[in-house]
Amino acid sequence: MTQSVGIARAHTNIALIKYWGKRDKELFLPMNSSLSLTLDAFYTDTKVVFDTAFTEDRFILNGLEQDEKEIRKISRFLDLFREYIGEDRFAVVESLNFVPTAAGLASSASAFAALALATATALNIDLSRQALSSFARRGSGSSTRSLFGGFVEWDMGTCSEDSLARPIDEADWDIGMLVIAVDKAKKKVASREGMDLTVATSPFYQAWVETAAQDLAAIKEAIAERDFEKLGRLTEHNGMKMHATTLSANPPFTYWSAASVRAQEAVRQVREESGLAAYMTMDAGPNVKVLCRASQMEELKRELSVLLPEFQLIESLPGQGASQLTEEEWQQSHSRFQKEVGYEG
Amino acid sequence: MTQSVGIARAHTNIALIKYWGKRDKELFLPMNSSLSLTLDAFYTDTKVVFDTAFTEDRFILNGLEQDEKEIRKISRFLDLFREYIGEDRFAVVESLNFVPTAAGLASSASAFAALALATATALNIDLSRQALSSFARRGSGSSTRSLFGGFVEWDMGTCSEDSLARPIDEADWDIGMLVIAVDKAKKKVASREGMDLTVATSPFYQAWVETAAQDLAAIKEAIAERDFEKLGRLTEHNGMKMHATTLSANPPFTYWSAASVRAQEAVRQVREESGLAAYMTMDAGPNVKVLCRASQMEELKRELSVLLPEFQLIESLPGQGASQLTEEEWQQSHSRFQKEVGYEG
Repeated sequence: MTQSVGIARAHTNIALIKYWGKRDKELFLPMNSSLSLTLDAFYTDTKVVFDTAFTEDRFILNGLEQDEKEIRKISRFLDLFREYIGEDRFAVVESLNFVPTAAGLASSASAFAALALATATALNIDLSRQALSSFARRGSGSSTRSLFGGFVEWDMGTCSEDSLARPIDEADWDIGMLVIAVDKAKKKVASREGMDLTVATSPFYQAWVETAAQDLAAIKEAIAERDFEKLGRLTEHNGMKMHATTLSANPPFTYWSAASVRAQEAVRQVREESGLAAYMTMDAGPNVKVLCRASQMEELKRELSVLLPEFQLIESLPGQGASQLTEEEWQQSHSRFQKEVGYEG
Repeated sequence: MTQSVGIARAHTNIALIKYWGKRDKELFLPMNSSLSLTLDAFYTDTKVVFDTAFTEDRFILNGLEQDEKEIRKISRFLDLFREYIGEDRFAVVESLNFVPTAAGLASSASAFAALALATATALNIDLSRQALSSFARRGSGSSTRSLFGGFVEWDMGTCSEDSLARPIDEADWDIGMLVIAVDKAKKKVASREGMDLTVATSPFYQAWVETAAQDLAAIKEAIAERDFEKLGRLTEHNGMKMHATTLSANPPFTYWSAASVRAQEAVRQVREESGLAAYMTMDAGPNVKVLCRASQMEELKRELSVLLPEFQLIESLPGQGASQLTEEEWQQSHSRFQKEVGYEG
């Protein structure tokens, strides 16, 4: 076969128990297991075409040909699959990112999950979703979890093959997430550098690893019991602990901006004054994500927008796992991207 | 003698290695030793009069008669001295606070240090400064360090008698501090409640205690070597670690406001762009204190005021230890207070 095509969509995910630190930087093996909620509102669509006629890999992101540095990341990722089945064709990878990039919304999570599924589809590689998630992990740690929908655990595992994701719960019990987009600027400290500095220098890091395991066990209980308050409190506690590790690094650093603190204060105020269920989490960027009840999301958004009129508030329900797209759906995706997001450059 | 009078001044201090957490709440015995810089710009003047004619203790702060709750704190503190020598007269305590209160500038530090010296003077109690500092500690932990000038260590000690301050260095080698007063509002979480919650719930607290001891040893080396960069880096690292412990408490909390983050970003920017020596520290409030070179303070203030036009920037040089005042100096203090600060209420 001279040409093989695979097209896939994967949604991004927000960790409620954070992935923060690697025990193996080559294999992206994490220091602790994590748990996330896949989000419906943010996703990446990716088409991969392998062809004997191609003389090199190419990567087109949001309509823009990427440079060598970006292509190299993609090539290395494709190599995992090529080596797995002895494939030697080059590929053209085209991606549409329906995710605000580089502001802590983890577009790399949906990107490598979609690329993993599209590549496995194109090359007709028969892998379980869990096995595929361990491939996705090699592109970006958090993408491991984006193969599945709802609440997803990434088991740290013992080696590359068993460090993979598994679905925990569909999250179909009145769960929502509101993203307070305070800043879309590129973050100052990349998450990779941030976690490496933290692992290397924070005296609090060992306690982070130990208690993240406890938090994970507790949040799985909360999910099994559908105890939203417990879920929320653990989410907020674990997320703030992750940010505490950056302050304890040497030299210290933070992903928070002044606007992040304003958003946090607004969430606390609305929670205290209106009694709405709302729990915060933040990643390696200034945006604040609010875990809430889907049924209260409109009211929560209204209350927060009064206090934070200048910030964009983006609603999301829990999302599905990664899925294959047809060529027709891919064309629709292009039209929608042009209309809703617009090509970069 | 029917009447005995003592008048004293003590300056506030800013911890470079923080006091954060008590091992004995009654005796104010700390979990770790700390080290501070006494500041010239902020101080408390206090006059204590014991008289057989008085039928109760009174406390007048900044010209305002205080209520029972405030008087009780003072009475309990005076009792330490009264019990020590078998004194049974009541006292009138009058204090003038040349310190913005309750915004993390630790007016309680200068307050109880001045009160300790004024009381010992009035009652003619012969105590060394170090012994007196262990009395001051019972009023407010950080006041232990305000008996001395320059760089001061508060040794955590083994019991009440040896948990006391000792002078480390006069800080007369081109040292200054610039306070970025972002907010004079009363803080949301009192330092006492904040440290208690942290000790009780933070999984990072044990590592805080252990590494604070290391930081203290290292900063004493830096002071002995007059290595300003090392002094500054340790100050910033230790202070941020303290704030990391509040984020890791359960529930998490922070003393930072949005303005604190803006001030931090400005300090980082000026340090990177102008090359001025400037290292941050924060206490249980939103203000940011910048350890700097006295010789660069004017330039630093100018640079920071461009980035932070709406905040007050207050310069201070290292301050002296607590000292006795004459009645004439006390009258001058009253005049100056009226002119510079103005009576409350």
